[in-house]
Amino acid sequence: METTGRAPTRREVLHAIGLMGGAAVLYQAMEAMGHAAESQFAGPPNLSGARPGASVLVLGAGLAGMLAAYELGKAGYKVQILEYNNRPGGRNWSLYGGDTYTELGGATQKVGFAPGNYLNPGPWRIPYHHRTLLHYCKAFGVVLEPFIQLNHQALVHSSKAFGGQPKRYRELAADWDGNVAELLAKAIDNKGLDSTIVAADRDRLKEALREWGILDKDMRYAKNLRTARRRGYDRPLGGGVDGAPIASQPFALTDLLDSDIGGIIASHMESQHQTTMFQPVGGMGMIGKAFGKQVADKIRYNAKVTKIDQSGGAVTATYTDVATNTVQTAKADYCVCTIPLGILSQIELDASAGLLSAIAAIPYSNSVKVGLEMKSRFWEDDEAIYGGMSFTDRPISLVSYPSNGMHSAGPAVLLGAYIYGPASYRFAGMTPQQRIAEALEDGAVLHPGRYKENYMSGATVAWSRVPFTLGCCAQWNEDTRKEHYQTLVAVDDRIVLAGEHASYIGCWMEGALLSSLDAVTRLHKRALEA
Amino acid sequence: METTGRAPTRREVLHAIGLMGGAAVLYQAMEAMGHAAESQFAGPPNLSGARPGASVLVLGAGLAGMLAAYELGKAGYKVQILEYNNRPGGRNWSLYGGDTYTELGGATQKVGFAPGNYLNPGPWRIPYHHRTLLHYCKAFGVVLEPFIQLNHQALVHSSKAFGGQPKRYRELAADWDGNVAELLAKAIDNKGLDSTIVAADRDRLKEALREWGILDKDMRYAKNLRTARRRGYDRPLGGGVDGAPIASQPFALTDLLDSDIGGIIASHMESQHQTTMFQPVGGMGMIGKAFGKQVADKIRYNAKVTKIDQSGGAVTATYTDVATNTVQTAKADYCVCTIPLGILSQIELDASAGLLSAIAAIPYSNSVKVGLEMKSRFWEDDEAIYGGMSFTDRPISLVSYPSNGMHSAGPAVLLGAYIYGPASYRFAGMTPQQRIAEALEDGAVLHPGRYKENYMSGATVAWSRVPFTLGCCAQWNEDTRKEHYQTLVAVDDRIVLAGEHASYIGCWMEGALLSSLDAVTRLHKRALEA
Repeated sequence: METTGRAPTRREVLHAIGLMGGAAVLYQAMEAMGHAAESQFAGPPNLSGARPGASVLVLGAGLAGMLAAYELGKAGYKVQILEYNNRPGGRNWSLYGGDTYTELGGATQKVGFAPGNYLNPGPWRIPYHHRTLLHYCKAFGVVLEPFIQLNHQALVHSSKAFGGQPKRYRELAADWDGNVAELLAKAIDNKGLDSTIVAADRDRLKEALREWGILDKDMRYAKNLRTARRRGYDRPLGGGVDGAPIASQPFALTDLLDSDIGGIIASHMESQHQTTMFQPVGGMGMIGKAFGKQVADKIRYNAKVTKIDQSGGAVTATYTDVATNTVQTAKADYCVCTIPLGILSQIELDASAGLLSAIAAIPYSNSVKVGLEMKSRFWEDDEAIYGGMSFTDRPISLVSYPSNGMHSAGPAVLLGAYIYGPASYRFAGMTPQQRIAEALEDGAVLHPGRYKENYMSGATVAWSRVPFTLGCCAQWNEDTRKEHYQTLVAVDDRIVLAGEHASYIGCWMEGALLSSLDAVTRLHKRALEA
Repeated sequence: METTGRAPTRREVLHAIGLMGGAAVLYQAMEAMGHAAESQFAGPPNLSGARPGASVLVLGAGLAGMLAAYELGKAGYKVQILEYNNRPGGRNWSLYGGDTYTELGGATQKVGFAPGNYLNPGPWRIPYHHRTLLHYCKAFGVVLEPFIQLNHQALVHSSKAFGGQPKRYRELAADWDGNVAELLAKAIDNKGLDSTIVAADRDRLKEALREWGILDKDMRYAKNLRTARRRGYDRPLGGGVDGAPIASQPFALTDLLDSDIGGIIASHMESQHQTTMFQPVGGMGMIGKAFGKQVADKIRYNAKVTKIDQSGGAVTATYTDVATNTVQTAKADYCVCTIPLGILSQIELDASAGLLSAIAAIPYSNSVKVGLEMKSRFWEDDEAIYGGMSFTDRPISLVSYPSNGMHSAGPAVLLGAYIYGPASYRFAGMTPQQRIAEALEDGAVLHPGRYKENYMSGATVAWSRVPFTLGCCAQWNEDTRKEHYQTLVAVDDRIVLAGEHASYIGCWMEGALLSSLDAVTRLHKRALEA
């Protein structure tokens, strides 16, 4: 810990405890300080004292690989990174106007977005509790701005509800709470819960339900100005002569159930979607670029690894330089391998049978994103939707409105589809143009008369066709966690795996980074003990 | 409507309908287009054809007065504004480092904040549905950024709950939903609602409750990894060897009732607090400054109006130039008076008995704000709280964390108190230093060991002591609305009142602006008919 005149920060205390006593003690300390629930991150690792000349080969210049290289380099290791792409970041990536992207199968897109506009094909939002990522964003100068997840004014569309007419989230969410409150209050009155709720709490609960669910004096959720204050008015409040508002009619329970609003509220309340979320100014790819700058001297681009050997007291990777089509090798004492499992399972890897079978056992999910550039921000100008997302039961699943540049003029890019599950494979089978066309059809149910009319250009990425991952991210289940997880993350002679697939925060950058910190900490220990 | 090659926007259509048919037709059209619930604003008024030489005197250079001057000026009127302060904006106002503020009673504060830091003594957030304000912010070049209202990671403190220990909003809100869901599902099973919910919906509701309230297979809200995903973990998800999470124990219903979490959720869901909210980059006062630029040539500052006469076919205002202490007069054909009612009731006003009694009948609320500059953003660094607010049942009522400059270093200003009700008068009775000291004591319950320790300097405004308003904003009730509202907003011979007090959106800038637009539209009509 630094010695300064001031009191140590909580983080410094935790870091010091972590150095002294390891994870278990650290966890107890965090719990005692009331912050256990935020993150396992307690500051960067303190890897000092690498043996002179010791070297590490890092495979993959995604966030996990670059963080490993950065921290191992600080510890004194000689580090080289081999990266298949000609850019840093891996799945952390933004597509800008002028960019070209060729997917597996050969379809090439030239992105036509206006300057400043982008699509984030992969990660697109950062939760507040992803402390490792936030720490390195600050350390590496990545400027962040709020990402809006929940928007009360955005739309919810279900083909099964309201005759297919989209409704505002605020209307549905208000009416859900109101209906639930009214029903529970009635059940209490009906003595239906006398054996469950102690008498002293029954009236207190009714009072709380009245406030939470905006019930009237008869404990009903009804059409009045109080409920309109939450769900919206038929005529909103104004000024002057016609300033008086007019209340709106709540929806019936059966319609609310059709709309699946309960599930949509639940999704917004998950920790990954809780406020306050962030995105980098200029696109998510700014993070990959910033990490790339820190390890620029260590990365060899265009290097497609074909074989990993760890005989003879060293790790040797054979790779093809895809720019020159020449086969080469790179050698080091140790290796941090961050290659996604679907790719790694196709590479000749010299490792324990357990690790090989773990690598082969974990499937990858697919997802498809579509970015649609629109002439103007009609969702802001005409509908007062600023950021956040509308939901639909159509395959696109959602339309996300840009959280950047809100309230400005000019063309803007919507995330016009975030397709997962079976539909994602159907979309991946289409040409990019077909995906964009279907996304426009689907999105038009949310903004009829505006959506297709404002469309300028699009870009789409189907992750099952992304050459460097062949999928979106690792899909663990309870069985595979039990059988393979500890084997997958263990140091295997001289090699350790890292990446979101070697974490419990699958599919998130934070998982990749925490996995990387844990991997390099253990590899360093292994190297010092060797 | 302009003729361009493109289809008219929804707003242009509404504007055209408004011109043709007035408010009632406009409202029907808005309703038909599904947007009635957003705002009564349908574009700026189209006031053309003022009689040559016709003049209007505007009293007050707050937002209502400046907008009136701007629109009447565009219509061809000769407009002059008299303003008591030496700046535009009125209650729209930010205090920056170096500013001096003297309250009624004589206490003077010299603000010591670092450059870029500020306190917004008055308005501090803009809802997405305040379309008039958003329109003019765009038109006048005010750059906006998101204002974070709801923060799941922020704290809720009640002296009556958890032995006075603050808890995270996410924990309490998750457990509220979970408890409500479990109880309602149980009531359905107990047949307590068979006569209320049709059979076909009972099972559907239970399924929806299971998802919304994260109930387990036995329909219980319990300690498990699914509930932890919403309320937070004892050990969060991580990467590598120790990546597996540990669930957390939900709170009991009786503790939740103690905490008043139902009421706090309800407050977040009100339309004024729904996402997405905004604030101007650089402080709320940027709006007043931007409006001021548009009418800079029309404003006479330091003008304290003492008498308003409307005899002889003109309006004459007598005022004291407080800089030179000289008495002067200003004369025009008509007058838009935006002086707050508590001040106006003390001015000799030549108006109908009805208007005078309306002016006298409406009391003003008080509130007290305290801005506290802290050495560092410890709430972000140590607790992952970015923007939003923590609540307490102490007099300060809340601590609001800055939504600007999140994730940056250096000193930052917290809104350390937003005091209303009886406590606001007790605080107004203190010296500024005493208010700040008590705000520090109260806020320390939320951040013990960090709050007082990081404090650098403070500023406070008690609205009952603000010389130009003598209060916060007008407090209407159902009776006064019935008896006085239409009289207050009616054109009284040559004078019309405008401001938040002449609207149904009391205390909000939007109310002042909509009131102003309505007032000038009617005054213009009156002038043309004269």
